[in-house]
This record gives sequence, structure tokens and C-alpha cells, in this order.
Amino acid sequence: MSVTAPRGFEAAGVAAGLKATGKPDVAVVVNRGPLKTGAAVFTSNRAKANPILWSQQAIADGVVEAVVLNSGGANCFTGPFGFQTTHQTAERAAELLGVSAGDVLVCSTGLIGTGDEVFRAKVLAGTAEAIATLSADGGDDAAHAIMTTDTVAKTSTLAGDGWTIGGMAKGAGMLAPGLATMLVVLTTDAVLDAAQADAHLRAATRVSFDRLDSDGCMSTNDQVTLMASGASGVEPDPTAFRAALAEVCTSLAIQLQCDAEGASHDISIEVIHAASEDDAVEVGRSVARNNLFKAAVFGNDPNWGRVLAAIGTTGADFDPYAVDVSMNGVRVCSDGGPDRPRDEVDLTPRATHVLIDLKVGDASATVYTNDLTHDYVHENSAYAS
Amino acid sequence: MSVTAPRGFEAAGVAAGLKATGKPDVAVVVNRGPLKTGAAVFTSNRAKANPILWSQQAIADGVVEAVVLNSGGANCFTGPFGFQTTHQTAERAAELLGVSAGDVLVCSTGLIGTGDEVFRAKVLAGTAEAIATLSADGGDDAAHAIMTTDTVAKTSTLAGDGWTIGGMAKGAGMLAPGLATMLVVLTTDAVLDAAQADAHLRAATRVSFDRLDSDGCMSTNDQVTLMASGASGVEPDPTAFRAALAEVCTSLAIQLQCDAEGASHDISIEVIHAASEDDAVEVGRSVARNNLFKAAVFGNDPNWGRVLAAIGTTGADFDPYAVDVSMNGVRVCSDGGPDRPRDEVDLTPRATHVLIDLKVGDASATVYTNDLTHDYVHENSAYAS
Repeated sequence: MSVTAPRGFEAAGVAAGLKATGKPDVAVVVNRGPLKTGAAVFTSNRAKANPILWSQQAIADGVVEAVVLNSGGANCFTGPFGFQTTHQTAERAAELLGVSAGDVLVCSTGLIGTGDEVFRAKVLAGTAEAIATLSADGGDDAAHAIMTTDTVAKTSTLAGDGWTIGGMAKGAGMLAPGLATMLVVLTTDAVLDAAQADAHLRAATRVSFDRLDSDGCMSTNDQVTLMASGASGVEPDPTAFRAALAEVCTSLAIQLQCDAEGASHDISIEVIHAASEDDAVEVGRSVARNNLFKAAVFGNDPNWGRVLAAIGTTGADFDPYAVDVSMNGVRVCSDGGPDRPRDEVDLTPRATHVLIDLKVGDASATVYTNDLTHDYVHENSAYAS
Repeated sequence: MSVTAPRGFEAAGVAAGLKATGKPDVAVVVNRGPLKTGAAVFTSNRAKANPILWSQQAIADGVVEAVVLNSGGANCFTGPFGFQTTHQTAERAAELLGVSAGDVLVCSTGLIGTGDEVFRAKVLAGTAEAIATLSADGGDDAAHAIMTTDTVAKTSTLAGDGWTIGGMAKGAGMLAPGLATMLVVLTTDAVLDAAQADAHLRAATRVSFDRLDSDGCMSTNDQVTLMASGASGVEPDPTAFRAALAEVCTSLAIQLQCDAEGASHDISIEVIHAASEDDAVEVGRSVARNNLFKAAVFGNDPNWGRVLAAIGTTGADFDPYAVDVSMNGVRVCSDGGPDRPRDEVDLTPRATHVLIDLKVGDASATVYTNDLTHDYVHENSAYAS
């Protein structure tokens, strides 16, 4: 059901010919209200795609009627023509839906530099076709239409106390968010105003998408949008709603991790006893971005020296000679020295857990990443084709 | 001739059994004077190996009599026992050379966590054996003894106006310096005092080793040492000497780049018209660390979108929509949009040139890196063996 699980939403996904495979590539998600509350977070990459530049303006008033998303082209670094394409996409959707273009967000994903006349024509036609087929059961179709190298559609739903949250996500590479990541649409029938939606969204993405770092590469097109229809008539308990939204976001983030291009291990790097949550995230992210560590995990090698070398490059508060490191439950390093023998560690399961005890304070965080594999190199050396 | 090219130096390299292959693994370089000037720069990784902790103390007085180097074990995260091993190595060398242990630097390279009783015994025996075979022709033997996954020994010499500089280096992985990189010993018979040696060394490494970033992974053991014997009796022109030292360091850095583990392309990322040299280096390094860009080069794919996406993550002064990018002489992106067709770019040569024009100021810098290949993943997933 994905984004159409909550009351008040319709969605569709259609094949507009942007993908050479002929698979669905344009999705539309519409909020039928009664509220039209919206919030969004965007990539912090300074090189922003045209749909990001558009959507940042459109979200300013906290009102979102619809989101149009396409795969098969990022419309990034395509100049003024590309921005006009995004603008025309919002206008076409607005005209057909009878709303203001300034309340239609646009998201694109695919190869950077793609956004010519043919691309524009297909996106505009696909937008119209998707709107013509909108349905309260269209959530799954929409989730499929935003896939690129994803092998499965990513959706999540959660039922709260009288309200529901639904979500869909795409992303399989260039997964290293700064603020937001990938294309994600979240919907809820809870009653929220724009300020509440914004605060809930930022809090939820901070502990979910922001802690996913598959390959250290930040995209130009990342966007996470939350729409609230208020159709349940229920004003949610703020703490419960925020926790539920974080849970949906974490579910989608983990689905992204598990489908990352070429990965053979899903690695959770849990940092405990840090001086601050920021320190814990910095340490976890540094390990997540260390190619030597990631290649070692691919080879089922519990190379804790590479973990410590990565921690050493951070500014976090810790004593390198007091740190403990465990891998899949075996403490291979204690107080910065060898502990249990490496061969006690079984790294053959896909799920890999690295526990880093900084022994400084009470804060903790988990960062999610993947290993560095032959398949990752292969898929990303041939992506442009 | 490497480090024994200048007058006043002797060196040796011997097989002490640290390497399973039986190849040479302990090197000693001795300064016979008359001056015993020394300077050194070290990894900025906060997780520092025992030889780094020792050598940082030993260099404080600006006097270096000798450097003992071993491959086959990093002696990092080996606790107080490992530090004692380094200390004993310096004492053994000092005793045999008739100098102070505080004037003997120690460098180690190999697997982190290696440094037990067997390691200690072999290093101490190898140090004695190397000192017994010291020779004014021993520079090449020393250069071979510090190799790990290097496929070739790296040496460089340069003759100045009455003085000579010699150098040797090792390093094939974990190549991302902070201040210094890898194990490097530089020698000169020029007349230098400690302050001059330190200033020249820092200036030379800043524009050479500091701009080599093969895989983004900073080592725990990096050290670059300069020794001056004064045996030429010539006080060099400071500007000429600094330029010559930078040339030797750049030659060694390029040799490291060309022998990087598993690489199939040597990539020079030249950033021009930056607001500052720091901006140029930051932009170059961000591209050098982008796995998607590096995988694309491996696949001979001129994916300029990934270059721009990497630049966008920096704090450098630039307008993403004004940047030009050329690859091997073909301008594939101008003003942040597509320019020449991708298929005009020939990325089959090993030497790859990426030119990034930020169009902001007058500063420039070149960062040296490699592509991300199947062989890199393979070699680094099996390194512990």
C-alpha cells in the first residue's frame, strides 16, 4: 500500500519511456486533504539538481498538493532548459489537478546530465498519464515507478492511534545523505500543521536516512517529502508520532541498505559510550567510509586494525588506546590491543555488526553501510550505459 | 643509489624473517656526518603506531643519527609491549653505532596488530645484521627491504649546486596522507640546521605526499624523515634546495601512485582558478575520494556528473553552474552543463587527467589518485593473509 495506506492519498505509476527497459518511470502522489500540509528535506550537496532547486522554493509555504517523481534521468546539470522542464512538469500536474503549480514538488533520479527535449516530452506525457490513472490503491505502482538500479521496491506502513503513516523510497547507489537521502515520499492522515510536519520530519530523518552511508557518495537529487492529509481527524501525540515516523524512515533506510548496489554485507556500526551523539555518528561514519575496512568485510576478514585507523582520523573524544572493538559478538580488540583471535569471528552472514566502545560518555549511534565488493565496482563502472 | 647518493650516508637492507616470503624486511640508514641534522613529519591519524610515538619524541632535538625501518608488521595497537619493542630497537641500533638511542628513529609497516615476542626478536636481530652490513652503496638494498605490497622499489636522486638529495619510499595501499604519508627517508649532504631542515621538509611534503590520495585511507604509521650530513660543505640556496626537495618528494609520490594496489589508472586531478590553494586541494581531494567517480574511470567512463557531485560536497568557493570539467583534454562539461560528447574522451591510457576550472580566482593544485578496481577490492579483502 505504501503511500496510499493513510486516508486522503492517491497515487499512480506509469511507463513513460524514460527507461530503456520500458518499465514504469513516472510516479505521482496526490494529497486529497482536507489538509495539504507538507514538509521536505533536501540534499546538502551544493550541486543540486533542477527538481531540488524547484522543490526548495515550492515547499517554503508548507503546502504540498502533490509530488511528481521520475526515474530514468536526474535532470541535474542540464542548465536553464532543465529547470524549465521541472517547472513545466509542476505546471502540467497543477493544471490537471486544479491546484497551484507552486504546491507541486518534483523529484528526479537517474544519470546526471540527462534532461534534453526527449526527456522533457516523456516526463510531461508521463505526468499526465499518471494523473489520469490516480487511485487510492496506487501506492505500490508508484513505488515501482521510482526504482532505478533498485532490485526491489521499498515501502513501509505503520498504524498509530487513529492515524497511519505510509512511505516509499528508492535508492541503490550514491547513498550518503547530508540531511536527506534518495527519493522518499511519506504520507500520513494525521492532523499536522506545517511546523509540526517539518519538525517531525527533520527529527525522523536525522536518526534514519542521515545515518545510512553506503558508499560515501552524496547525491545531487536527494529529497524526502512528508505530506499530511488530516483525513483521520486525529491530532497525534507528538512523541508517539515522531517515534512512528522515525520507525518508518528507519525501515525504509534499512531497505535501501539491504539493496545497495553490489553489496554482499549489510554492516551496522554501533558506537557506544561516546561523549556526544555527534561524536558517535562521526566515528561510525568514518568507519563506514573506509574502503580498506569495507573490502576486508567483503573478504570476511575481521580486520579491526582498519577500524581503529578509521576512528583515528576523526575529531571525536576518545583515547585510541582505550577503545574496544567487537565484530559479530567477538571482542577482537580491547583497550586498543588484540583480544580474541580473529578466526573466532564469523563474517559469512550478510548481516554484520561492528560494536565500538569509546569508553568516554553515555551517547551512542548506529551508522548503516555496506561492504566494498567486486560487484559494486562492476555496477558503477558500467552505470552510464 | 637512493638514500646513499649524497655523501655521508650508509645503508643496508636484510632479511630478518618478518616476511613469510623470506624477502628483505629490515633496513637501516645511517648519517655519518659531519652534521647530524634531522627533521620528520608524521601521520596526523590520532591512532599512531608505536614507532610514530617513539620517533615524535626522538626528533624533538633536531638530531638524527640513524633510521631503522621494518616491513612485515606495523607494531601498531600492540600496547606497551610494542612500544618497548620500538624502544629496544633504537637502543640496539644506538649501542652498535655508538650513538644515543634518542637520536635513532624507528619506522614500521605491515599489518596492524602485529608485534609479538617473535616480531621483536626478529626486528632486533635484523637491526644488528643490517648495521653489520652497512655500506655507502646500500641505498637500493634499503629501498627493497621496506617494500610491502609494493611491486617495485621507489627511489629518487637529484644533484644540486654542489649538493645532492636522495630518497626512498614505500607504500601501495592506505595512501591518504595527513601531513606526511608512508615510509620515506630523504638524505642530503647539504649543510642544513634543524630549523632549515624542518621548514624545507614541511614545504616539500605539503605539495607532494600531502596531495597523494590513492584510496582515502590514512595510515597509522606514516613518516617522512630528512637527514642532512653536511658532507658537501655547501650551504644551499634555500629556494633552490626547497624546490629540489619538492621535486624528489613529488617523484617518490608519483611512484607510489603508479604502484598503488590494484589500480589501472593514475589520475591527476588538476584544479585551476580556485579562490585559494586550500580550496583547490579540497576540491581535488573530494573528487579523488569519490568511489563512484573512481569506479567510472576504471570502466573508462567519462562520467563528469560524478565529478560535479563530488565538488558539490566541498566548502570551496565556486558556483556549481559555472564549472568546466575536461577529461584527457576533452571539455565534457562547461558552465555546469554538458559540452562535448562523452564518446570523444579516450580513457584507455593509464595516465588520466581531469581538469576542473572553478572560475573564481588564481590558485591551483593537483591531487593524485587512482581508480577503484576489481583488483583493489581483491587485494584488500585478502591482505591479512
